[in-house]
Amino acid sequence: MDPFLQAAIDEAKLGLSEGGLPIGSVLVRGGQIIGRGHNRRVQHGDPMAHAEIDCLKNAGRQATYKDTVLYSTLMPCFLCTGAAVQFGVPKVVVGESITFPGGESKWGRSGDFMEAAGIEVVNLHDATCIQMMRDFIAANPKLWNEDIGV
Amino acid sequence: MDPFLQAAIDEAKLGLSEGGLPIGSVLVRGGQIIGRGHNRRVQHGDPMAHAEIDCLKNAGRQATYKDTVLYSTLMPCFLCTGAAVQFGVPKVVVGESITFPGGESKWGRSGDFMEAAGIEVVNLHDATCIQMMRDFIAANPKLWNEDIGV
Repeated sequence: MDPFLQAAIDEAKLGLSEGGLPIGSVLVRGGQIIGRGHNRRVQHGDPMAHAEIDCLKNAGRQATYKDTVLYSTLMPCFLCTGAAVQFGVPKVVVGESITFPGGESKWGRSGDFMEAAGIEVVNLHDATCIQMMRDFIAANPKLWNEDIGV
Repeated sequence: MDPFLQAAIDEAKLGLSEGGLPIGSVLVRGGQIIGRGHNRRVQHGDPMAHAEIDCLKNAGRQATYKDTVLYSTLMPCFLCTGAAVQFGVPKVVVGESITFPGGESKWGRSGDFMEAAGIEVVNLHDATCIQMMRDFIAANPKLWNEDIGV
């Protein structure tokens, strides 16, 4: 198991234990985790608190993101994709994209948008990540749809 | 003066008075402001606290954004564009795009991305908004560049 994906999964589980959505994220530089976070929409009543946004917030202000890798247990939506594109994160590693293939828009999908914007996207197709979201969505379909604005 | 742009300018001025960047935003539904915010990167040490994200956060959880209009004193970057696309905000009104023509990426600019994703973008070319950002960028070029990840 990739240790950074494991850290993102740990964050997702923490979110679940708080009554939130099980989506976690870490930001890595030079083999070190410099920020970590999880979805806190429910916990904070904050629709912007997606896992990747929470992680980037917790990492604090950075002079550059050019030497960072953003991990997420789930394919990022357009909000989180937009953050990676704007701040110049060159590589995004995702746990899975089976339960959520990325945000949808008239333009296309958020994963394709990251790649069109020059980001390297690595999908680890992780079974733990898939099962975690499958279980959550089956039990909480309304909460999940709200999270992605459906 | 559009009263919602005026409210966004008031938010921007509040941010400036706190030592932050003068960028403000409001979310409108049915002629009522349901959320307002301003850039708080400096105030909260939070690189994700762009004006539009702060505004959408302060508006709280919404069942839908299909009947909302997002105002910003400045052309939104990819982070904020991404939020509007993901959550289905159909219309974005911007104060100006002279001091910042939108986020840049290998794909193209964030304003064009909003339009490609089906969002109606209205630019009010407001002189107050332009002057406010011109003055700020001239006095704080490093802080401004950090805000947009340059």
